[in-house]
Amino acid sequence: MSTMEQIKNLREKTGAGIVDVKKALDEAKGDEVKAIEILRKRGQDKALKKSDREALEGIVVAYVHSNNRMGALLKLSCETDFVARNEEFRELGHDIAMHVVAAAPQFVKAEDVPDALVEKEKIIWREQLVREGKPEEMFEKIMMGKEEKFRKDISLLTQSFIKDPTKTVGELLTEKIHKIGENIQVSSFIRYEM
Amino acid sequence: MSTMEQIKNLREKTGAGIVDVKKALDEAKGDEVKAIEILRKRGQDKALKKSDREALEGIVVAYVHSNNRMGALLKLSCETDFVARNEEFRELGHDIAMHVVAAAPQFVKAEDVPDALVEKEKIIWREQLVREGKPEEMFEKIMMGKEEKFRKDISLLTQSFIKDPTKTVGELLTEKIHKIGENIQVSSFIRYEM
Repeated sequence: MSTMEQIKNLREKTGAGIVDVKKALDEAKGDEVKAIEILRKRGQDKALKKSDREALEGIVVAYVHSNNRMGALLKLSCETDFVARNEEFRELGHDIAMHVVAAAPQFVKAEDVPDALVEKEKIIWREQLVREGKPEEMFEKIMMGKEEKFRKDISLLTQSFIKDPTKTVGELLTEKIHKIGENIQVSSFIRYEM
Repeated sequence: MSTMEQIKNLREKTGAGIVDVKKALDEAKGDEVKAIEILRKRGQDKALKKSDREALEGIVVAYVHSNNRMGALLKLSCETDFVARNEEFRELGHDIAMHVVAAAPQFVKAEDVPDALVEKEKIIWREQLVREGKPEEMFEKIMMGKEEKFRKDISLLTQSFIKDPTKTVGELLTEKIHKIGENIQVSSFIRYEM
């Protein structure tokens, strides 16, 4: 049984129609992750499909914290010049730049985190596990969990959005892709701190 | 014979006292470059000495062009928190960020330009010289000139300052170091364009 809340949530995430979302949720017995899979397989995830389209227009956005000691610069891209001038699109850019200043992500996506960086962390985690006396056979599973968390914590799209921690920045983008109707991407960003 | 104009100019550039500047200019027979050398040897170039001191305080400055398609972020450092809050220092940061957006430098100093980048250009210059039928024995000298110009053209401190092309950004910094009385440096900058 799908609740109204779930339907609303999934529509925002996928951009699919209400009937399609209801069907998918019923089939998935209320499991949202499975429902997204079903919508994706059927090509009904409009927002997710839009995120494959080329985004070559867009804006450059800057945000400097009021203490003048931290700032961020980013490129928010979209498909048309028309959207690049859209007020909501510009607000999104501002909010993401502010998020970058506050949350200090180092990469756009979790998969962008270089393996070499993860390997360095793994050495420390392993030492911790040994110190804590955890059984050797649990190491691999624990380390996998730690790696996933580490990658997500330092990547923009998987961080909780500072202005609304109920969603990630990636989910915010998907919502806006659905609402604005174009692929939107953070193509690059940088953060400086004195 | 030193003119008032020259004395004023050299004082701004070096931060040396009026008597020292006059003496140095007389000795150098009005040659400003030589006069700076003389002041430097005698340790009378206060501004130049200040630029060796550590600058760990400062501000992060952003500038986005009105078309929202180009922007720059930079760190302008100084020695004390007091100067970091100074209005003139902040204006300087704003002006340099605007300069970066307009003039698109790629490095801070001419010597920061990687040799590998210069070598690539040299191949093209050499081909041009051959095509133009320039005598082989002149190549080295011409190439040295081209390399110097190339390095200066793409480096922030050696570019003509867009708001006042009679000086370079580096000269502007030296003036401000003298006026504000602390070492000031552009420690990093980045420019984005859609």
